[in-house]
Amino acid sequence: MASPHRVLLSLLSITLFSFSISPVSSQHEHPLDPLTPVEFSLIRDAVKRSYGASGENVTFQYVGLDEPDKSLVHSWMSSQASKKPPPRRASVVVRLHGQTHELVVDLSSHQPSIVSKEVYHGHGFPMLTMEEQTAAIELPRTHDEFIQSIKNRGLDMSSVVCSTFSVGWYGELRSRRVVKVLAFYTNGTVNFYMRPIEGIVVVVDLELMKIVKYHDRFATTVPTAEDTEYRLEKQNPPFGPHLKGAAIVQPHGLGFDIKGHTISWANWKFHLGFDVRVGPIISLASIYDLEKDKYRQVLYRAYVSEVFVPYMDPTEEWYYKTYFDSGEFGFGLSAVSLQPRVDCPDNAVFMDGFYAGQDGTPVKITNVTCVFEKYAGNIMWRHTEVGIPDVTIREVRSDVSLVVRSVSTVGNYDYILDWEFKPSGAIKFEVGLTGILEVKAVNYTHASQIKEDEYGTMVGANTIATHHDHFLTYHLDLDVDGAPNSFVKTNLITKPVAEEGVPRKSYWTVSSKTARTESEAQLHLGLEPCDLIVVNPNKQTKVGNNVGYRLIPGPIASPILFRDDYPQIRAAFTNNNLWVTPYNKSEKWASGRYVDQSRGDDTLAVWTKRNRKIENEDIVLWYTLGFHHVPYQEDFPIMPTLSGGFELRPTNFFDRNPVLKTKSPEPVILSCKP
Amino acid sequence: MASPHRVLLSLLSITLFSFSISPVSSQHEHPLDPLTPVEFSLIRDAVKRSYGASGENVTFQYVGLDEPDKSLVHSWMSSQASKKPPPRRASVVVRLHGQTHELVVDLSSHQPSIVSKEVYHGHGFPMLTMEEQTAAIELPRTHDEFIQSIKNRGLDMSSVVCSTFSVGWYGELRSRRVVKVLAFYTNGTVNFYMRPIEGIVVVVDLELMKIVKYHDRFATTVPTAEDTEYRLEKQNPPFGPHLKGAAIVQPHGLGFDIKGHTISWANWKFHLGFDVRVGPIISLASIYDLEKDKYRQVLYRAYVSEVFVPYMDPTEEWYYKTYFDSGEFGFGLSAVSLQPRVDCPDNAVFMDGFYAGQDGTPVKITNVTCVFEKYAGNIMWRHTEVGIPDVTIREVRSDVSLVVRSVSTVGNYDYILDWEFKPSGAIKFEVGLTGILEVKAVNYTHASQIKEDEYGTMVGANTIATHHDHFLTYHLDLDVDGAPNSFVKTNLITKPVAEEGVPRKSYWTVSSKTARTESEAQLHLGLEPCDLIVVNPNKQTKVGNNVGYRLIPGPIASPILFRDDYPQIRAAFTNNNLWVTPYNKSEKWASGRYVDQSRGDDTLAVWTKRNRKIENEDIVLWYTLGFHHVPYQEDFPIMPTLSGGFELRPTNFFDRNPVLKTKSPEPVILSCKP
Repeated sequence: MASPHRVLLSLLSITLFSFSISPVSSQHEHPLDPLTPVEFSLIRDAVKRSYGASGENVTFQYVGLDEPDKSLVHSWMSSQASKKPPPRRASVVVRLHGQTHELVVDLSSHQPSIVSKEVYHGHGFPMLTMEEQTAAIELPRTHDEFIQSIKNRGLDMSSVVCSTFSVGWYGELRSRRVVKVLAFYTNGTVNFYMRPIEGIVVVVDLELMKIVKYHDRFATTVPTAEDTEYRLEKQNPPFGPHLKGAAIVQPHGLGFDIKGHTISWANWKFHLGFDVRVGPIISLASIYDLEKDKYRQVLYRAYVSEVFVPYMDPTEEWYYKTYFDSGEFGFGLSAVSLQPRVDCPDNAVFMDGFYAGQDGTPVKITNVTCVFEKYAGNIMWRHTEVGIPDVTIREVRSDVSLVVRSVSTVGNYDYILDWEFKPSGAIKFEVGLTGILEVKAVNYTHASQIKEDEYGTMVGANTIATHHDHFLTYHLDLDVDGAPNSFVKTNLITKPVAEEGVPRKSYWTVSSKTARTESEAQLHLGLEPCDLIVVNPNKQTKVGNNVGYRLIPGPIASPILFRDDYPQIRAAFTNNNLWVTPYNKSEKWASGRYVDQSRGDDTLAVWTKRNRKIENEDIVLWYTLGFHHVPYQEDFPIMPTLSGGFELRPTNFFDRNPVLKTKSPEPVILSCKP
Repeated sequence: MASPHRVLLSLLSITLFSFSISPVSSQHEHPLDPLTPVEFSLIRDAVKRSYGASGENVTFQYVGLDEPDKSLVHSWMSSQASKKPPPRRASVVVRLHGQTHELVVDLSSHQPSIVSKEVYHGHGFPMLTMEEQTAAIELPRTHDEFIQSIKNRGLDMSSVVCSTFSVGWYGELRSRRVVKVLAFYTNGTVNFYMRPIEGIVVVVDLELMKIVKYHDRFATTVPTAEDTEYRLEKQNPPFGPHLKGAAIVQPHGLGFDIKGHTISWANWKFHLGFDVRVGPIISLASIYDLEKDKYRQVLYRAYVSEVFVPYMDPTEEWYYKTYFDSGEFGFGLSAVSLQPRVDCPDNAVFMDGFYAGQDGTPVKITNVTCVFEKYAGNIMWRHTEVGIPDVTIREVRSDVSLVVRSVSTVGNYDYILDWEFKPSGAIKFEVGLTGILEVKAVNYTHASQIKEDEYGTMVGANTIATHHDHFLTYHLDLDVDGAPNSFVKTNLITKPVAEEGVPRKSYWTVSSKTARTESEAQLHLGLEPCDLIVVNPNKQTKVGNNVGYRLIPGPIASPILFRDDYPQIRAAFTNNNLWVTPYNKSEKWASGRYVDQSRGDDTLAVWTKRNRKIENEDIVLWYTLGFHHVPYQEDFPIMPTLSGGFELRPTNFFDRNPVLKTKSPEPVILSCKP
């Protein structure tokens, strides 16, 4: 679901919020740095210029860094950045006269130039812009039929707000670039999502920017505004529960350092980028090996590649709601300004993000990411030893980690994305689901009245919160100690005991299998116990184990729609929990390049049909983290965060515990006055 | 694996550590308070007295609170503690002349009396005491064959330490109360676990306290002490990675209050007990409902009921290693003193624990639990709203939670147990695995030399870390808004779309099934998507949903030994991830009352064969959290914490989000001097 008014916010935020510590210098220093405002402007001018008189009609649907070849980045890195960086290019998608154009803009010369320009004739459309969604939701307001529908329901037009919904693809032979526009009611609440005006479907053609279909099938009671407000200022006493405040004080300063987009902390070093489609991007994460006295590569590039959110109400007004939050709405475009002290703790540092608006000019999202050291009171490792006579040993190391956080609010839902780096070499990926549910208005006021499936939970009078899923597909380009890696599945196999004289009957042991091709790597978790390891078959530890990193899944959920159902064809990349592909610069997004009304012909599930070799190759893992969401009343009118995640953990990567020689942070003794 | 020298530590700790804030008053105030030192002494005297002259030979294997009937506790609670508390009783297990005696001691009169005394004739033996393990490991030192074995290996007896191992049950018709004693080498390291002296098996009869079997089958290289030390003082530079310190400052004081053993914080109130067998016990957790203006019950009693840790080396010297860390070694007996500032953060408050030593006298474990407010930088809920023209809304509540922590170190392994209470009503249960692996010494120095299965990972020269599992079975006596509850499994079912004119083919919906009997509730996770809910069928929300709490599993692992293998027969309570039983005061421990050499005839798996009614009854959930542990080199010589857990979350328990009217904690602005 879209956030059509974001442009307003984004423009506003430039002037309104000024407490961001912006470590981004004006010139790019690293080949993976995101495009700068200056570059966005140069690209805009170059693209418009290239279209001559038509330039005015061009709309910018996607502008992002065209990342250099990995080899060029590594060669630049190994030169200690003394070399000239590889040519800097931007990838641009514009719409003009009803067609999608793909351009590559070279930015390395003084005068940027178009180095490639093609019209895309395949299925699917590019990301929606904020501006066209904003325009679309204005249309019903002056549309006679809509005015009549609102009047018929006895509602006040000035309290009606609309929102745009991607329409999906359901076997149509021809697709026009349309969105559906649905109406909600504010009148006494800002939580309009809880007050849907059911029965009306408005279809807007984005190219014509007009309503091309209107349908008012039925009316239901609009749920009351009561109990739906979530703003503090609108709550009445009593308040509570009450939480005491605390300050995290680091009198010796922050433990991390940000130079441009490169962040160094403890034994970690990585680059933090930002893209309008996927949001934050972690690149070139490497970890310092104390024994080898050098940084060793772990992760070349990681980001959330797609977020598939199908709703489970099959009725005419709801069935199409099967969003692709990245490919349709932009997880970066939907990223929001983080509020210091509450979205991120006191000791956080914030970075801004930029993207190209529909007309190509740069838009700033202030505080789009934050970086902070997490002092959660965890224990890094410990042991109490009482097994040696007359000696008592207690060795404990307290843990600190570094978190990179962003929040993408795609209409009603807020996704909190955390990337947590640990000194032990682990990286934890966590997503927190919060924000507001999508609900359907019904005439029922009590669950006992419901005799048929209403496809959700009654969370309030006249209010059904619809069943849905969230599948986040992570792109994890691991380069474990170098690019050539293999994916090894270590199965745990139960065996009978053969040892003579031993009365035990069974044990388990491991049976490791290296996936030679893409099909051998695909897997569905939950069926059999296994460890999932990316190894570098060319590097061994001292005692001869292949160095590696393993993926430790968290809660598992897989899609349960029919495989041949349209949304699932488009989201076939979620059919496995894990896929492995050979690195291919063009395979960035699991859902394909053009996702709005895509037909599933350009997804990870299709690419992998080639069944390419992946053994001892530069490989990419695609891991899908899923949630089936049956809503409950606690999620109303705004949902307490529900979290899930997974972990990458060094696996014979180090010769021994890499934090053995880590000291607990020095105790900080303060004399403070509140 | 046992910690035989714990008594030393415990006695020492009384005098050595004095920074504990002890909120425990000397008299018991609550019927669920753990036994006090005074009570332990009274019990000791009463029991010894009851045996007359034989009293001197009695050994105390278990002494704990004989908890009053739930109805009596509730009746006392509802009287606002104005009533006299229910009769206070202790449950005592002693050994005398090779027999197990069960006693109940009444403590309510001035002179404690024995109200019941029975000899137990069934299978299995009670928990091992620290003292008898300490005695057992001294025996080899003066045993000629052992002296010779050590000499033959060219080792120095003064550097040999021994440890006790429970022997399990492998079909023997008669069992004597024995342990196996294995030898390790210190000489240059305190990490003797990394230096096993393989090939020797010593069997000690604990009743005779003598070696009854000795076997020296083969010798292997003892791995070097090099690289095995984990004490900071023994590390050489360079150190690192370096972590900066931070202070968590709460200038307005702690947010929680401890009165006796009752803890109040935010909207939570609960009782924190301690038992020598299971460790910390959470009781009577209830949450304040702002709208109803009252506390509502959630959890009557929760603790880790058993911890099953089978190792996977089937050879003669290893096969029997299938520990029951609670029933054999005591998760409370193995609980350790927590180190302020590192085991728990600066803002933690500590509580002590007590248990009866072998002779019945009280032993104190200083700082056995800590309680602290966790400021992890998380977001309780949030939303940014840009969907309303000219209005921008950003409402964020930062999260704080309350953690109760303890650590049980069962020989080599350290288990960090966290119970985290959230203002949203969720309770998170987390276990962190750290400490030291069990390894086998081999002659190999490099993985390439290994041609056969060595049942583990080579983590260093001559060192194989053995495959093993950890299964923690939690006892969760939920009383959701009262005792009569039902267990409902909400299955997610895929259905074809029947709606006319809708091109979508499928969706999922829920199909809820209430388990009527124990067998209907048993389940194996991972096969099908479902929500697992405990509801109170007699209480509804305003809109008519049954109030409930659901269990959200984390990582899932199930035993994969043969079901008819001896260890798995004893641990049959792990055969399902979830069981539900009707509340029965005597069914406290999933593994049964007498676990050492148990035969599986008194486990959860057996009790539930009666297939009792559980619908609208006072029910108990038994949830098993599992880890298959394939060790890796990072776990050597001491293991970075690996965590897993699960969550209980309100599910239509509240009429709406219970933290809607919660304010983020006030920002704390300090002027501090380090």
